[in-house]
Amino acid sequence: MRDFSADHRWLSLNTATVRKQGNLSEIIEACARHGIRAIDPWRDQVAAIGLDHAVRAVRDAALELSGYCRGGMFTSDAAHRIEVRDDNRRAVDEAKALGAPCLVLVVGGLPQYSRPGSMSSKNIAAARMQVEDGLAELMVYARGANMPLAIEPLHPAYAADRACVNTTKQALDLCDRLDPQRSGALGIALDVYHIWWDPEVSTQIERAGKQRLLAFHVCDWLVPTVDVLNDRGMMGDGVIDIRSLRRAVEAQGFAGYSEIEIFSNAWWQKPIDEVLRICAERHRSAV
Amino acid sequence: MRDFSADHRWLSLNTATVRKQGNLSEIIEACARHGIRAIDPWRDQVAAIGLDHAVRAVRDAALELSGYCRGGMFTSDAAHRIEVRDDNRRAVDEAKALGAPCLVLVVGGLPQYSRPGSMSSKNIAAARMQVEDGLAELMVYARGANMPLAIEPLHPAYAADRACVNTTKQALDLCDRLDPQRSGALGIALDVYHIWWDPEVSTQIERAGKQRLLAFHVCDWLVPTVDVLNDRGMMGDGVIDIRSLRRAVEAQGFAGYSEIEIFSNAWWQKPIDEVLRICAERHRSAV
Repeated sequence: MRDFSADHRWLSLNTATVRKQGNLSEIIEACARHGIRAIDPWRDQVAAIGLDHAVRAVRDAALELSGYCRGGMFTSDAAHRIEVRDDNRRAVDEAKALGAPCLVLVVGGLPQYSRPGSMSSKNIAAARMQVEDGLAELMVYARGANMPLAIEPLHPAYAADRACVNTTKQALDLCDRLDPQRSGALGIALDVYHIWWDPEVSTQIERAGKQRLLAFHVCDWLVPTVDVLNDRGMMGDGVIDIRSLRRAVEAQGFAGYSEIEIFSNAWWQKPIDEVLRICAERHRSAV
Repeated sequence: MRDFSADHRWLSLNTATVRKQGNLSEIIEACARHGIRAIDPWRDQVAAIGLDHAVRAVRDAALELSGYCRGGMFTSDAAHRIEVRDDNRRAVDEAKALGAPCLVLVVGGLPQYSRPGSMSSKNIAAARMQVEDGLAELMVYARGANMPLAIEPLHPAYAADRACVNTTKQALDLCDRLDPQRSGALGIALDVYHIWWDPEVSTQIERAGKQRLLAFHVCDWLVPTVDVLNDRGMMGDGVIDIRSLRRAVEAQGFAGYSEIEIFSNAWWQKPIDEVLRICAERHRSAV
């Protein structure tokens, strides 16, 4: 297991962590001030400054990417299928232009939340079949662009409105069905927030192996959690045994960035330099 | 599958649903007004009017019980072990006195939340081992009282603070290890709120079979959920395909009450007769 206590060279910043404090250019400048070497930007943040501008800003700052957030939202009614396909293809193109190592996929929950305007459904099993079909279709395009796809299983609290892939096992079952050769085209993005509770998480991380482990995200689970979506904690402030999970992925050979992704109304209210300073501290002490 | 559309004879009221509107005596009177034949009372509600009084009130109203809420909270530090044991034995005794068919168990999360004052821990695997030990110990006492224990797997959102048994599979694994003979002493209480997201729920309900299915609870999952604990929905107001889950348990031979348990700041603010009227309507139309 790597020693993170001396520096934060393996810290990547998911730019949603400070999305309220500035645009992507300002976030990139702040990363430079704090010696942060990698980011995972969100599509809306890239769009806000323009893709070309974002590509240049990343290159000028000599930043690496640990991923690109996000594709997916495969679940929809028939009227939205083309929109889903084209939207995801654009996400692949953007990830490629930015030099991302993978496109992170949040697969979508029930159609009415995944693609607003879609007809309502309570059939989560059907949604899961749609996800598999959508993934299979997108893989063809992503292979052409040589862009790995990383399925992110989301906490079951988001099953209805964000992702109906809710366990590491489910994500790996999809990988095994769609990419049995372990070609590298398909893998998973594991966020401790989503997986820490899972009694099977250790065995599933072993099953994943290095080939499938495309990204590792950290934050913490607060008790109480006052907002289901936007009350994630800074590492060390909650109940997750983050180091054990990092040990498990590193035991499989994962040697990439530990990406900090905190959606938090509380942290979004603090100055960007304070947030990044504490991120770096906690990366050393609690990750 | 039973037809619930004509009456609500299989409706049981978990009394937490209207806990803010009156004490247990008042709730029992309201059940009589609405032709509700069964309840599942909570220990604090029983304690508030006194056990003897509660036993008489249930008997005088000719109410059945569909369960008794709740035992468990097995996770603690060493200093609290005796408290845990004795507290759970009292719960068994109360369930017996009230004529409950089972004691529902919420097993506890991390020790500091399960038994306040316990030393803090982030070790959920250790908590799970404690649950198994605590269950094994309580089973001896419960067998003596001929009181079945029903493990309730709770949604992973409660893994830290309420229950580290978070899937039907986990609950059944415990049952199989502690009661391999399927003696009837140990089973599960399934609440649609906790299990609807689980991709394995159908296969696990089949695995459970009639012998292990001791209770079936209903409410709904709202989108958005504004409070992790106290924003459960009235059946039909959310995204859960409740009827499919009822069909699955009834296919195994479950023929007991469909127990309504709604923790909701919104519903707690409405008059008790309005809540019970709508419960009965939705039992017929949405369960």
